[in-house]
Amino acid sequence: MTPSTAHVPIRRVTDETASDAEDLLAVEAPLEIVVVARARGEAGRVERRLGITMRTPGHDRELAVGLLFAEGVITRAADVVAVEEGAGASGGLVRVTLGDDVLVDLGRTERALAVANASCGVCGKASVDVASFAPPAPLAPGVPRIAPRVVHGLAARLRAAQPVFGQTGALHAAALFDAGGALIDLREDVGRHNAVDKLVGAALLAGRLPDPGAVLMVSGRAGFELVQKALRASIPVMVAVGAPSSLAAELAAAHGMTLVGFARDARFNVYAGAERIAVPAEAAR
Amino acid sequence: MTPSTAHVPIRRVTDETASDAEDLLAVEAPLEIVVVARARGEAGRVERRLGITMRTPGHDRELAVGLLFAEGVITRAADVVAVEEGAGASGGLVRVTLGDDVLVDLGRTERALAVANASCGVCGKASVDVASFAPPAPLAPGVPRIAPRVVHGLAARLRAAQPVFGQTGALHAAALFDAGGALIDLREDVGRHNAVDKLVGAALLAGRLPDPGAVLMVSGRAGFELVQKALRASIPVMVAVGAPSSLAAELAAAHGMTLVGFARDARFNVYAGAERIAVPAEAAR
Repeated sequence: MTPSTAHVPIRRVTDETASDAEDLLAVEAPLEIVVVARARGEAGRVERRLGITMRTPGHDRELAVGLLFAEGVITRAADVVAVEEGAGASGGLVRVTLGDDVLVDLGRTERALAVANASCGVCGKASVDVASFAPPAPLAPGVPRIAPRVVHGLAARLRAAQPVFGQTGALHAAALFDAGGALIDLREDVGRHNAVDKLVGAALLAGRLPDPGAVLMVSGRAGFELVQKALRASIPVMVAVGAPSSLAAELAAAHGMTLVGFARDARFNVYAGAERIAVPAEAAR
Repeated sequence: MTPSTAHVPIRRVTDETASDAEDLLAVEAPLEIVVVARARGEAGRVERRLGITMRTPGHDRELAVGLLFAEGVITRAADVVAVEEGAGASGGLVRVTLGDDVLVDLGRTERALAVANASCGVCGKASVDVASFAPPAPLAPGVPRIAPRVVHGLAARLRAAQPVFGQTGALHAAALFDAGGALIDLREDVGRHNAVDKLVGAALLAGRLPDPGAVLMVSGRAGFELVQKALRASIPVMVAVGAPSSLAAELAAAHGMTLVGFARDARFNVYAGAERIAVPAEAAR
């Protein structure tokens, strides 16, 4: 089984120091959900892959059953005859066999599952493959180059730029800064992904993309989906106040993007693309 | 235009006091995205609704354009001929008209958009209607009845019960407690929705559902999707460490569920179903 945490090499940066270290990240990995069941309009039982959900490995059988329950495919434990874990095309797989008195509407269920838990941007898609994701253009290596003190200042600037309501913490924010730390634009939403889409949409409509010097700052964590959105917009640097997921760090590294996490309290961790972060003057490397 | 925040009546509870107050919530509301474009396999331009996304109203045109860009439907600002806001069946609507040199694969795009931003459990579905969501069974009014001190203790118990890694804040947690505050079960995941699905799946497989005394605690915010999952599992009380969205509070109220937010620092707010929270002994009502 895939472990639920992963040790990754990072660079830990303060105003005066930069040091190589190791960090523990939450694993974010795809899980395929397959049902074996009687299906509307089909003879006998069929085996069908209903979709992919991004999750932290562990308790996968319970996740599959809980998701089928949440979507109304099953209504009680007795509807489930067997739940087995296996190996899927993209990673984990759970096969749920349902009883003969459960009749599944496959089309409706595939659609419901595809959208049910998709805070990832990939759920329900055919496969999840970090290597095959193709951004529109490669990022320029080493550009921009950012001073650690600029990164340290971003979280406070993000907060200061949010309207009063956002400062209460009830809305996520996404902002674009230049490499010197000047705010270009900011958007808020209950959904981090929406805040990023609004920000990128605004930049696109205003003719500000691609911007080889842009820095994207997000108020919470950095998942796979957000890194994907940044790469598509050719944004070379993403800074998150919270933790990245393992897959986010992997995707950023695969495409030469700089990914910074835990950018708060005058320190931050670099998970990919450390060459865009200038070495502090008195750095102990 | 729908405002992005909503004032809602709440009950604010500490160990000694309970008082009626007003709170400002982030609005979470559906937005339909419609494209007018040339489509593969169709003659001339077609107008097609690609999906629904849940978002905080505001900058809707930018959101629609950013989402189409993130999904690769458009690759530059010049692909967009017009972006208009309108009224949709479920709330907001944005109609994006694309240039003649953009050819859209409608099936692929509908699927991509349906799953792209769906941290809501409803995106891509035909409509979003709080009133028409039907839980499997109505909740028993007033059951369970919980002392404020029990609610106050839940956040600390959730933290204490999380494995070490979860305590770093990198994983979301969802837990079931009984009405006296005793922990029944806990699950963690990078996705809050997954943590809830794992928890409910485990309870279902263990024959512990429905449980008229169950209290669901989640580590972050409470959105529409989580309330929907709790209602489907007939869980009468949901407590969030963070803020609920407007739609979450509305859905909980519509189905007689108790929804508590900001349960930390020895106080909490009740957004729906306040009758399940016992009045503090010295309450000033």
